[in-house]
Amino acid sequence: MRAVTFQGKESVRVETVADPKLEKPTDAIVAVRAAGLCGSDLHVYHERERGLDTGTVMGHEFVGEIIETGSAVTSLHRGDRVVSPFTTSCGSCSFCRDGLTARCVAGQLFGWVERGAGLQGAQAEYVRVPLAASTLVRLPEAIGNEAGVLLGDVLPTGWFCAEMAAAHAGGLWVVIGCGPVGLCAVLAARAQGAGKLLAVDPVPERLALAERFGAEPIDPTRVDVRAAVRDLSDGRGADAVLELVGSADAGRLAYDLVRPGGTISVVGVHNEDRFAFSPAEAYDKNLTYRTGRCPARAKIDALLPQALRWSEQIEAILSHRVPLEEAPAAYDAFARRAGNCTKFLFVP
Amino acid sequence: MRAVTFQGKESVRVETVADPKLEKPTDAIVAVRAAGLCGSDLHVYHERERGLDTGTVMGHEFVGEIIETGSAVTSLHRGDRVVSPFTTSCGSCSFCRDGLTARCVAGQLFGWVERGAGLQGAQAEYVRVPLAASTLVRLPEAIGNEAGVLLGDVLPTGWFCAEMAAAHAGGLWVVIGCGPVGLCAVLAARAQGAGKLLAVDPVPERLALAERFGAEPIDPTRVDVRAAVRDLSDGRGADAVLELVGSADAGRLAYDLVRPGGTISVVGVHNEDRFAFSPAEAYDKNLTYRTGRCPARAKIDALLPQALRWSEQIEAILSHRVPLEEAPAAYDAFARRAGNCTKFLFVP
Repeated sequence: MRAVTFQGKESVRVETVADPKLEKPTDAIVAVRAAGLCGSDLHVYHERERGLDTGTVMGHEFVGEIIETGSAVTSLHRGDRVVSPFTTSCGSCSFCRDGLTARCVAGQLFGWVERGAGLQGAQAEYVRVPLAASTLVRLPEAIGNEAGVLLGDVLPTGWFCAEMAAAHAGGLWVVIGCGPVGLCAVLAARAQGAGKLLAVDPVPERLALAERFGAEPIDPTRVDVRAAVRDLSDGRGADAVLELVGSADAGRLAYDLVRPGGTISVVGVHNEDRFAFSPAEAYDKNLTYRTGRCPARAKIDALLPQALRWSEQIEAILSHRVPLEEAPAAYDAFARRAGNCTKFLFVP
Repeated sequence: MRAVTFQGKESVRVETVADPKLEKPTDAIVAVRAAGLCGSDLHVYHERERGLDTGTVMGHEFVGEIIETGSAVTSLHRGDRVVSPFTTSCGSCSFCRDGLTARCVAGQLFGWVERGAGLQGAQAEYVRVPLAASTLVRLPEAIGNEAGVLLGDVLPTGWFCAEMAAAHAGGLWVVIGCGPVGLCAVLAARAQGAGKLLAVDPVPERLALAERFGAEPIDPTRVDVRAAVRDLSDGRGADAVLELVGSADAGRLAYDLVRPGGTISVVGVHNEDRFAFSPAEAYDKNLTYRTGRCPARAKIDALLPQALRWSEQIEAILSHRVPLEEAPAAYDAFARRAGNCTKFLFVP
């Protein structure tokens, strides 16, 4: 099959690799109909996250059609159209039972193979899905492949980020970073009870979408964000800050904006070796800091109605659809944020 | 009056200073009947926290009798026996209204004077209490002066630390550090729904009290705490870790013990410049980290019944009662943890 493979720093290639095969009775093989290019793929691409084997098939967001199932997979059948969360999960360990499927003891992340061990990704014609029965979700007909791809990662992750701030319903919320996940966090914050909602991003197109989705836009290259939040809160600060960037600057901004007693919710993946604030600074603000990988599998069912309601917004987030063969150019454009790209979809 | 004053690193003196006077109509003057020596006084004593003016009267835990009130203080009267939280609070700003009295916009910490500004402490015969009507709490007769002192800081702070972990009722909780606040956290964790409760401390006497208060004791000098928690949780980790030490080692231990999706609740005052774990490590555990200064004023009323119920335990925590004149020896003994001291009270 054709697949997008990792070739070292800032290099991916589309090449022919062996088709995946069933390895265990709990596996399924899925023919990919649409796969996403995610901001976290760029962490690998830029080698901010290291360790991935050369030749690993990239990608962890996809919708597809089941073409083969292992003997233990009885609830799914050839021809079913399914979405996958970005990690697999067994559905029965204590973490899965608690709704923390992203920390399943048997779970694997798609597109992460290290020293020969791990799981190939979904930017390919086919993908092997372990623990298929507890991982995959059948898509209702009303939800297209494109919206479905967002249900695998971006939409639940934005939703999860807002959930971690839910103690502050009615308050002033700030979303830092309006990429696809940030835009979904804006939608989720609106749905989950943000009172006043601000969105911070330097990219005009992203900021315009955030505004269209219900946030008051702040361009940090033109406005002093700290002063703006101070003014809007009588000097108090933001009740909740949702940080979706994953940089030291964003971490420090979140700290400076949050009010004493407030919450910082972080789904941005940080690669710095230290926090942007000290333990004493956290103490001085009576801070609640929440972070982690979204348990997407545990959120998808509940988000199906939202995906329908937000079909227009999802359409707006998906800026580029390209064939798999154009992946190297897409990675390059996405890394440079060229051509007003918000979100690439690969259609194998 | 006689008062314990700060004289630089590891030096306090009992000396005669001017009696405090009413400065504002909202002040009260309280004759101190019992004052506590707190672990956080040692941060100042060892100059781990810097900036305190030489000559500052130390101490922020006290019970006393009102001897004079400003003209605006109508709800309290001469002769009232009162406890004070360790910070003053106005009762009307947005933080006070939210129950976050420790972050009152007009609040001050007793025993902290820096460049001439601040509030003198309570290890003295008399203390001036600003914002008296909204700060002081009249003590019921059934609660003695000694239990009352614990209501000002230690008991609410332990309670608050447990509250920040309340999402994990029924789970495995670990208390790190069994000084007076840690022991109160053990009592509070039991009252607030810890399922299994472990207490970690290297001091045998403290650990014995923790066991008496309902925790399973772990001496980290004899047992591998990480392995013990792994074994007790089928490898999962602790649902909640309450950290009451304030050191890098304790911070790292808390991180290593907590399970994915768990909560670390910290009231220990940290003076390190960085966290004991990285943002990526926090992400990898889907961590909730909560910290801050206890809003003691907001907790005292609700804790009056607990103080009665726990009179025997409170008695056990208070190990030493000494006259004010013995303060220098008490600081020295407490700093060295000599003579099995858990908690000193000064009786002026």
